[in-house]
Amino acid sequence: MSIKIFGHQNPDTDTVTSALVLEYIERARGNDDVEAVMLGEIGEETAFALNYFGVDAPKIIDSVIDGERVMLVDHNEFQQSATNIENAEILKVYDHHRISNFETESPLYFRAEPVGCTATILYKVFKEEGLDIPKDMAGLMLSAVISDTLLFKSPTTTKEDEVTGRALADLAGVDVDTYGLEMLKAGASTKDKTAAELIGQDAKTFEVNEKNVRIAQINVVDVDEVFERRQELETAINAEVDREEYDLFILVVTNILVSDSKVLALGKDYKAVEAAFDVTLDDNTAILEGVVSRKKQVVPNITKALS
Amino acid sequence: MSIKIFGHQNPDTDTVTSALVLEYIERARGNDDVEAVMLGEIGEETAFALNYFGVDAPKIIDSVIDGERVMLVDHNEFQQSATNIENAEILKVYDHHRISNFETESPLYFRAEPVGCTATILYKVFKEEGLDIPKDMAGLMLSAVISDTLLFKSPTTTKEDEVTGRALADLAGVDVDTYGLEMLKAGASTKDKTAAELIGQDAKTFEVNEKNVRIAQINVVDVDEVFERRQELETAINAEVDREEYDLFILVVTNILVSDSKVLALGKDYKAVEAAFDVTLDDNTAILEGVVSRKKQVVPNITKALS
Repeated sequence: MSIKIFGHQNPDTDTVTSALVLEYIERARGNDDVEAVMLGEIGEETAFALNYFGVDAPKIIDSVIDGERVMLVDHNEFQQSATNIENAEILKVYDHHRISNFETESPLYFRAEPVGCTATILYKVFKEEGLDIPKDMAGLMLSAVISDTLLFKSPTTTKEDEVTGRALADLAGVDVDTYGLEMLKAGASTKDKTAAELIGQDAKTFEVNEKNVRIAQINVVDVDEVFERRQELETAINAEVDREEYDLFILVVTNILVSDSKVLALGKDYKAVEAAFDVTLDDNTAILEGVVSRKKQVVPNITKALS
Repeated sequence: MSIKIFGHQNPDTDTVTSALVLEYIERARGNDDVEAVMLGEIGEETAFALNYFGVDAPKIIDSVIDGERVMLVDHNEFQQSATNIENAEILKVYDHHRISNFETESPLYFRAEPVGCTATILYKVFKEEGLDIPKDMAGLMLSAVISDTLLFKSPTTTKEDEVTGRALADLAGVDVDTYGLEMLKAGASTKDKTAAELIGQDAKTFEVNEKNVRIAQINVVDVDEVFERRQELETAINAEVDREEYDLFILVVTNILVSDSKVLALGKDYKAVEAAFDVTLDDNTAILEGVVSRKKQVVPNITKALS
């Protein structure tokens, strides 16, 4: 059986493209027995990027079997990974997140760096190993950089991400701002999505001080378009809170044009958002000025507030 | 306060020299605010290596303070690290062990590779970043490779370790076999050590399926020299088993000349050794043919037997 390469659940652009790019790198290293897959449907932003650079989406899986050999990209926490991941043999990990709820029985190859996206690390691998970067792979990595850094505006953006993004734009033959805004807007429309899709398309679960926290994020160009559907979203979220026993569910609606977010906090610990961001909730919502990053802003603040 | 760089408790040659080498690399990268330290006294093998290449031993610490910035080498499991490590800010990790009982609040730089020792990874860092390797740093890394691979005989040895070791011997200006055997023998005498020193000098604790397992290893050239002191060792081990509530304590006495080990298994789960290695214990001891590696042979087999 081929070694499967995949990113986290609710795949975003960095997760999907990094699996495809690592598959390419492994083949270039002489390891042909690899296959990029993903743990769910792609969103419209990722579809835009794959289509633009003429690459097919990987096939979808949801679990791995005991002892199956896998490589992970863009995540390490088991609760964000494939079902049964704890019984797989993890050979390699390329990631840019904190490390938590991850363990192996044997030594492995694990490379994490505190940069804005996995693609920035994979770009460095190409350079270190003297591998050529074809145009389509450059385009996929560029799309991941733009997506995770919101066109270099997110506070997760490092200098290395920006240098990498601009170098990749040259290799991919596109103007970074034109292509980037077009790609982000492709993923920013919420009109044709159900409430379940909106709260599930980019959502991650975190265990914080024995609390079960779910943080969903939607990038938009029109925040009101989402909050006009407040009642429908709240019903969908409360159903998930009951079913999955979340102590806290935060929906973060991020305006990618002005770089702030409006949150909707539900679940019995919803008040934690007030201490976390020094705000007062108005009917369970608040504007978080300058907050655009789940990883760098929302998760650390919520972690402190719940600890 | 300087950023402290350190390896695991009961420091061995790879752990001590890797801290010193990473300090060197960080300074070469322009980060002067770093200091290699260690979590206990060095053994005679490490003393031989430091003395041979004219490098002072790092100072000893045993704990870190809340929020202190640190870098780890040659380990990641918190129970093998400094006291209070869970409240430190871990900036970087270079390691070649499995990942377990390790977590951070924020993204970090983590580089693990499944090679025979940390020095093999650090050698690659010098190459990747185009840094010169001075003779003393080459000597320290060579000593680590020899120590962890038992002169390339341990099954943990990869081709990369051997290529690295031979390249480092050239840079250090020594014959790898002559220097290597001299260094290993320097650490192999047990006569002038107390029973407590013998069972503590290279011992690690593992949590396996909620069992508390301690595995101590001694490399020798004369196994009988150790087992003549069986009664004294057993008393010391049983005292530790009681004090630390170990379910299983395995003393692995490895003959570095013929590459096998004799084990002494104590604690209430001592019988696990029989299933682990398909042997019959004779008065709590057994010969394990071809077993020289705790990481690659003892830990995985014990883990399976207890799971």
